[in-house]
Amino acid sequence: MTAQNNKIARRDFLTSIGKAVGGSAMLRAMAAMGIASGASACGSSSAASVPAAPPPPPPPPSGIAQARPGDWPANVGSGRSVLILGAGISGMTAAWEMRKLGYTCTILEAQASAGGRNKTIRSGDTIDEIDSSQTCLFDVADDLYLNAGPSRIAHHHEFLLGYCREFGIDLETFTNSNHGAWMHSTSTFGGQPQIAKQIFTDTRGNIARLLATAINQNALDQELSATDKSNILQMLGTFGDLDTGSGYAGSSRAGFPGQMNAGSRRRGERVTPLQLQELIADTFWELRASFSQGFEQQPTMLQPTGGMDKIARAFESRVLAETVFEAQVSEIRKTASGTRVVYSDRFGTPTTIDTDFCIVTIPATVLASIANDFSAAHQAEIAGFNYTSAVRAGFQSRRFWEQDHNIYGGISWTDQEITQIWYPNYGFGKTDGIILGAYIFGGVSGDNFANLSPAQRIGSIQSQANNVHPEFNAEASRGISIAWRKMPFQLGGWGTSNPATLLTPDANIVFAGEHLSMLQGWQEGAILSAYHAIDQVVMLS
Amino acid sequence: MTAQNNKIARRDFLTSIGKAVGGSAMLRAMAAMGIASGASACGSSSAASVPAAPPPPPPPPSGIAQARPGDWPANVGSGRSVLILGAGISGMTAAWEMRKLGYTCTILEAQASAGGRNKTIRSGDTIDEIDSSQTCLFDVADDLYLNAGPSRIAHHHEFLLGYCREFGIDLETFTNSNHGAWMHSTSTFGGQPQIAKQIFTDTRGNIARLLATAINQNALDQELSATDKSNILQMLGTFGDLDTGSGYAGSSRAGFPGQMNAGSRRRGERVTPLQLQELIADTFWELRASFSQGFEQQPTMLQPTGGMDKIARAFESRVLAETVFEAQVSEIRKTASGTRVVYSDRFGTPTTIDTDFCIVTIPATVLASIANDFSAAHQAEIAGFNYTSAVRAGFQSRRFWEQDHNIYGGISWTDQEITQIWYPNYGFGKTDGIILGAYIFGGVSGDNFANLSPAQRIGSIQSQANNVHPEFNAEASRGISIAWRKMPFQLGGWGTSNPATLLTPDANIVFAGEHLSMLQGWQEGAILSAYHAIDQVVMLS
Repeated sequence: MTAQNNKIARRDFLTSIGKAVGGSAMLRAMAAMGIASGASACGSSSAASVPAAPPPPPPPPSGIAQARPGDWPANVGSGRSVLILGAGISGMTAAWEMRKLGYTCTILEAQASAGGRNKTIRSGDTIDEIDSSQTCLFDVADDLYLNAGPSRIAHHHEFLLGYCREFGIDLETFTNSNHGAWMHSTSTFGGQPQIAKQIFTDTRGNIARLLATAINQNALDQELSATDKSNILQMLGTFGDLDTGSGYAGSSRAGFPGQMNAGSRRRGERVTPLQLQELIADTFWELRASFSQGFEQQPTMLQPTGGMDKIARAFESRVLAETVFEAQVSEIRKTASGTRVVYSDRFGTPTTIDTDFCIVTIPATVLASIANDFSAAHQAEIAGFNYTSAVRAGFQSRRFWEQDHNIYGGISWTDQEITQIWYPNYGFGKTDGIILGAYIFGGVSGDNFANLSPAQRIGSIQSQANNVHPEFNAEASRGISIAWRKMPFQLGGWGTSNPATLLTPDANIVFAGEHLSMLQGWQEGAILSAYHAIDQVVMLS
Repeated sequence: MTAQNNKIARRDFLTSIGKAVGGSAMLRAMAAMGIASGASACGSSSAASVPAAPPPPPPPPSGIAQARPGDWPANVGSGRSVLILGAGISGMTAAWEMRKLGYTCTILEAQASAGGRNKTIRSGDTIDEIDSSQTCLFDVADDLYLNAGPSRIAHHHEFLLGYCREFGIDLETFTNSNHGAWMHSTSTFGGQPQIAKQIFTDTRGNIARLLATAINQNALDQELSATDKSNILQMLGTFGDLDTGSGYAGSSRAGFPGQMNAGSRRRGERVTPLQLQELIADTFWELRASFSQGFEQQPTMLQPTGGMDKIARAFESRVLAETVFEAQVSEIRKTASGTRVVYSDRFGTPTTIDTDFCIVTIPATVLASIANDFSAAHQAEIAGFNYTSAVRAGFQSRRFWEQDHNIYGGISWTDQEITQIWYPNYGFGKTDGIILGAYIFGGVSGDNFANLSPAQRIGSIQSQANNVHPEFNAEASRGISIAWRKMPFQLGGWGTSNPATLLTPDANIVFAGEHLSMLQGWQEGAILSAYHAIDQVVMLS
């Protein structure tokens, strides 16, 4: 998701969740200036028909800028009803928070359980895509599971982590960058996987050496003073583990010969450094070596102990009374006073619900096919919203990566379609584990794999993974895959278009979901988007 | 331990454990060539009086060079007795493995429990130094503990990890480098702590920008071809997150404004990059930014769930029948046929044990005061062996670092004496946690703190930690400290001298312990040293 993250980070903040925060903050600022009618300033088409804007939330407790739903008065939603479409993270967040504000909430969820793309696969679970069905054949054990959707939480995803704390969900560390894992390019180093620490170390060493050479040749004298030069040469020595003469002849940081296989006793010896020309010939190495520097990908990252769906289950249990399961929405309409939704219940019976407000968290890919009264602009943005075609597959295997290769968690990279191999960050030392044989996030490869049958996918993944770990075919079995493009109520991995119109209400209908946040593809984004939707409803109330 | 690691890595392999492996390998090679009397080749002074050398171990199973005790024939020690002094990791490893080889083993341990420096402090435990005693006042909870000695396991410490697997010890990830933790220099950036990700990111950005500038000025044309230049410029763009023009104006990798405090909603904005001149003016930043690149410090690192002493307890339970506790050794002697040791039992009664062999794992600092028959060379090396003066202190506190600062595990650095602040890598989300307020590894600071009373240490640590986290004084309490220099049966943190004579037997006495390995200060080193001792005894048998 490197490219994705760069895009998010570079996106104009105001076009996404920032706009929501800005709107809320603007309202507060206006209120502080004695301008009470904040709602109409937010562009709501129904602003004229609703009561005066509610009082703004109190100032945040300690001078910190905040935009939490709890900032709104507890009774702000009394006597108001809200229908929430979708019991994913955003929908459940909205219900959980709006109940605290006095709203009467109902959630319609198309499936038999909540969580949306927050999905963990264990023994006996099924993955039912639109044209195939698979059953998980893993053994039954606490640590034998596959997180099919979100799998990691950045340390600054503080709202999600706050809910984990509030709900008592045990967390453990997720390793994104394991220097003992491997990188594999079919076109470089003879197609042999390289241990990550050597890529990292020799990249740093070569960069430091070249810069030191240039500085020693006085090439940067226009910019650097004599003191700067002395200081930066010293810094480069540490950064790249250079020799005293600012040369680079390899480093103990790269490990020792034979380290990719357990049993090498050659510690204290150095491995021969990789050639700079090979390290720079293929962008694969530079992209992968910088992956865990990304905004969302840096350590510490976290995961719930026992599976990501611990979060889904914790939310679900708290909004269970408000949730109607197996309710498939067929129409979303505006009424004179609010909204009307028609859905089929679990017996196929059409049912109509009228509420004051509706929060739509249904993915745009699915929403596009539901009859609605949305404005043409809203409809157009929904119809054109792009999603990734994320694919994952898990296999049960002897933990050969731990026992034979000293790999404990983290990710190996390959330039083949399977992209990533994930090793479990839990259950260390157990006999078997679930290894993620592929994580394809988008692009042509994602669509290609989605269009294969489950058996074809597993065969292809086995074959590619075997090019990284030659024991993969023999050791890993019981493969099960998920192609989010083909999951019936998702039809995609995560949104990738820049949202605009969908960030604004359409009469009393507001929109939410990870795709409408600046953290697309992350649960924290779903939560921030829910907060945005709550702010909009409060301001419309 | 950066400097320490560099030293270890640079040390000639053959002067340390490599010598042992070399010896064993040499024996096998000689055997393969039909030269059977390997023992005398190892320099044993008693080689002439023992039976012919045992058959060499079988070749390793899969072509991998190995030097595991299990490679020796199972009956190689039948009818032979070994006395092991010290039930630390090396002593217990020796007993556990030598029993498998047929030796009759006895361990003498001075204290009432095993583990040596593998020590975890929980509610009610005492720390009894030579001139003070402290009781741990932490609350009783699974996650409220302080690892007073070793605390992390490198992913390539495969023998220790192998025992964890064999003994069924649960492991979890230890985070050494948390990009959300802080770095604090009293002399730079106005003494304000900086978030690690900004130091890392701006360091990379500035280095990449400067090198790109030099390359674009053709300063490296002697070394780089046109293709190289193009490729490396592209690589630098990714490495440093440079602009398209190879400039550096900050990066989303550095996070967002206000990120050091929970509640900032300013994602999507960039922080202003730190000035290169400040980043290079103080070696503090460069040393700390490169710490987790070190050979022993790279991810993945691991720890036993529930405390490092899970390892000590697992070993202890397996050698319990062979261990005499509270047995303080007073004499170590040579006899005509083996060794004689005198110790005081728990009632102070002197007792004598005669065995064929003796393995001495007592730290050199303690061993120097025990009457012995060692050769003058062995005595001299023992007397001059240097140890660090490691100091640690733990405090119970509300997890303000998680709740208020989004810090989940890892280490913050300061240039004050306390050096490091560690956040627990477990129990995330709980109300309270044990925060390590100081980890001083050696140097003048270590001795200074060792010489303070426990109360003085805690006061000083509180004061320094408060300069990093201004809430420390108010939130953290119940401080308890350990100065390994003053622990009666250790008298030091870990060995730092280069071993030489102690790697060779003295008659039927052999020596072991972390200080005699190339991984000084690590449990893996203690294990490798035990394997070395076993090889020596086998070759003497």
